[in-house]
Amino acid sequence: MPTALNALETPALLLDEPRMMANIARLSARLRALGVPLRPHVKTAKCIEVALAMTGGAPGPITVSTLREAERFAQAGFRDITYAVGISANKLPHVAELLARGVRLTVILDSVEAAVAVAGFMRGRREGLDVLIEIDTDGHRAGVQPESPDLLAVAHALQAPQVALMGVLTHAGESYQCKGDEALRAMAEQERAGAVLAAQRLRAAGHPAPVVSVGSTPTALSAVDLSGVTEVRAGVFVFFDLVMAGVGVCTPEQIAVSVLTTVIGHQDHRGWTLCDAGWMALSRDRGTAAQAVDQGYGLVCDAAGQVLPDFIVSAVSQEHGTITHRSGDPTRRLNLPVGTMLRILPNHACATGAQHDRYRVLDESGGVAREWERFGGW
Amino acid sequence: MPTALNALETPALLLDEPRMMANIARLSARLRALGVPLRPHVKTAKCIEVALAMTGGAPGPITVSTLREAERFAQAGFRDITYAVGISANKLPHVAELLARGVRLTVILDSVEAAVAVAGFMRGRREGLDVLIEIDTDGHRAGVQPESPDLLAVAHALQAPQVALMGVLTHAGESYQCKGDEALRAMAEQERAGAVLAAQRLRAAGHPAPVVSVGSTPTALSAVDLSGVTEVRAGVFVFFDLVMAGVGVCTPEQIAVSVLTTVIGHQDHRGWTLCDAGWMALSRDRGTAAQAVDQGYGLVCDAAGQVLPDFIVSAVSQEHGTITHRSGDPTRRLNLPVGTMLRILPNHACATGAQHDRYRVLDESGGVAREWERFGGW
Repeated sequence: MPTALNALETPALLLDEPRMMANIARLSARLRALGVPLRPHVKTAKCIEVALAMTGGAPGPITVSTLREAERFAQAGFRDITYAVGISANKLPHVAELLARGVRLTVILDSVEAAVAVAGFMRGRREGLDVLIEIDTDGHRAGVQPESPDLLAVAHALQAPQVALMGVLTHAGESYQCKGDEALRAMAEQERAGAVLAAQRLRAAGHPAPVVSVGSTPTALSAVDLSGVTEVRAGVFVFFDLVMAGVGVCTPEQIAVSVLTTVIGHQDHRGWTLCDAGWMALSRDRGTAAQAVDQGYGLVCDAAGQVLPDFIVSAVSQEHGTITHRSGDPTRRLNLPVGTMLRILPNHACATGAQHDRYRVLDESGGVAREWERFGGW
Repeated sequence: MPTALNALETPALLLDEPRMMANIARLSARLRALGVPLRPHVKTAKCIEVALAMTGGAPGPITVSTLREAERFAQAGFRDITYAVGISANKLPHVAELLARGVRLTVILDSVEAAVAVAGFMRGRREGLDVLIEIDTDGHRAGVQPESPDLLAVAHALQAPQVALMGVLTHAGESYQCKGDEALRAMAEQERAGAVLAAQRLRAAGHPAPVVSVGSTPTALSAVDLSGVTEVRAGVFVFFDLVMAGVGVCTPEQIAVSVLTTVIGHQDHRGWTLCDAGWMALSRDRGTAAQAVDQGYGLVCDAAGQVLPDFIVSAVSQEHGTITHRSGDPTRRLNLPVGTMLRILPNHACATGAQHDRYRVLDESGGVAREWERFGGW
């Protein structure tokens, strides 16, 4: 018997399981049609149950953003894990521990310095380490340019016993800034082409480089051709959020996570409704600020999840949210009594999720059927 | 024997204990001179050891922002706790549990609706509940206006067995926007005068209202007269942060918390140094964005804590920070090898702290002498 929402203390993080399963099915179908397997990024959810749902019910290949994630997912039976943040020397002992426990951990790097550190550390060890070279296909963050001579220098520095250069990895984070389907398709192709070019250059230089790993939620949902790609990484697609809705790859009705909150007061003359979801519950993420529709700190829904059009959380302090009409017009106020429950859709599911230690999982009835743990830290 | 910083995996939250103790001593001396006791807000640190340091080594009166904090501090022996977020009916069973365990919990509210809910809930219970009426002295957030007829209506609605109207509470959150000492002193006086006026009106109407609780870090450090005030609440003073430095109540050298990070790569042609402190470690807080000096996502120091002038974390993703010169000039890059450790001073200590589950506590030697747990949630 599911628990009714009004029995919960607020704020609380809700996860609509039917919506999540539909989001997973959507990307899976797409990638099946393109003939490329998914290696989901579990950093969005940091939850064993969600990761299992993304890998079809049993542990499969995953991507992580911290070694803590690698550890926790390894404990849950996940064995094929790519740690997709540039490795540094001070993390190598932790990497070695994971290898010794039988995890097939792949690390990434983009410099000769890091390659030398990894090769030096692995020398004389029993376990082998798989390495991907990070490629910069969009000028967004880290990575070697696909056509740069540095690519071959990094590959060369990795030649050492116990180190296997498996190929390349790229992430088109810049796709979050894309406007419109055409721009998204072009970015997906740019990501694919850059990664494939880099892998071809490695192969031409005598490195096998079988792996070509690409991905971001917007490009994964927009690519029309993934020739030469061997796996797609994506994470936020499992929940979606207002930033993804702003990019155009989902609707607010597909967002699977929200924060349940309670009206705790009003300042009627200012048009404010105060609720108990502040930045601690919503995060400080303002990812929609630069989009066509600025959603403040989140879009307000009623307790059943129906969007209350144009009501947003326009200001937050630690444990207070201020709900106003998007127009700022104080006469257009929400006008709901103290004690009313609401849901807030998040700008950024990864950031909002990180503020909570568990999901209250809603089933088809809209009640809380179970709780799933969520972890953090490094 | 303290642990050297380079033995830590990054990112990690550092707490400089000597700086923290100096910050506590500074506010304590100030309030002693003004003759008003401190009821520190423990929401910044959410850590038993830090709270004990703020209350002189043994449990004393504290302020909390969640019932989870009330619970955890009660377990550690704190018995006099003010929960300074407007109470809602769905939290009253939790409040009652805390009262039953012998905690003297004070709640706040600012509406007749909430007062009626509290009075109704407490009817027939064994334990009594202390209530303060929240006063709005700066137009910043919640609270009844000091001169409003609503004040007496709320007080009237609270008249019920087991409910004691103890007085008033206000928080001049708007002081974070003040520029200059004079503005800060004026805001402190506005906060004091509004709270005292509200208490006087309650007393004139026959309510004893012995408590007049005010406070924010900027006003607590700026007030020159606190006549009529019976306690001061402040929290972030214990650590300070870049926002407080921007307001002018501390220097960067007094900030007691920082995030230890490692250089993981470069994009030299763009002037970027990439490190492993992204928004997950730093938070998304951009509190300095509206100040005279925008510190991006944090100000960069060397591993020993010396500020590297004008290098800031100018962009973040989940586990990546991009360090650039404040000018954006790509030729003025940090130029430190991969593997170099740095410290990042946070915009907002409460928000950055919330991203971590423990403090690595530095002693005078600059090494990690101990670890203190930090908790979150509701």
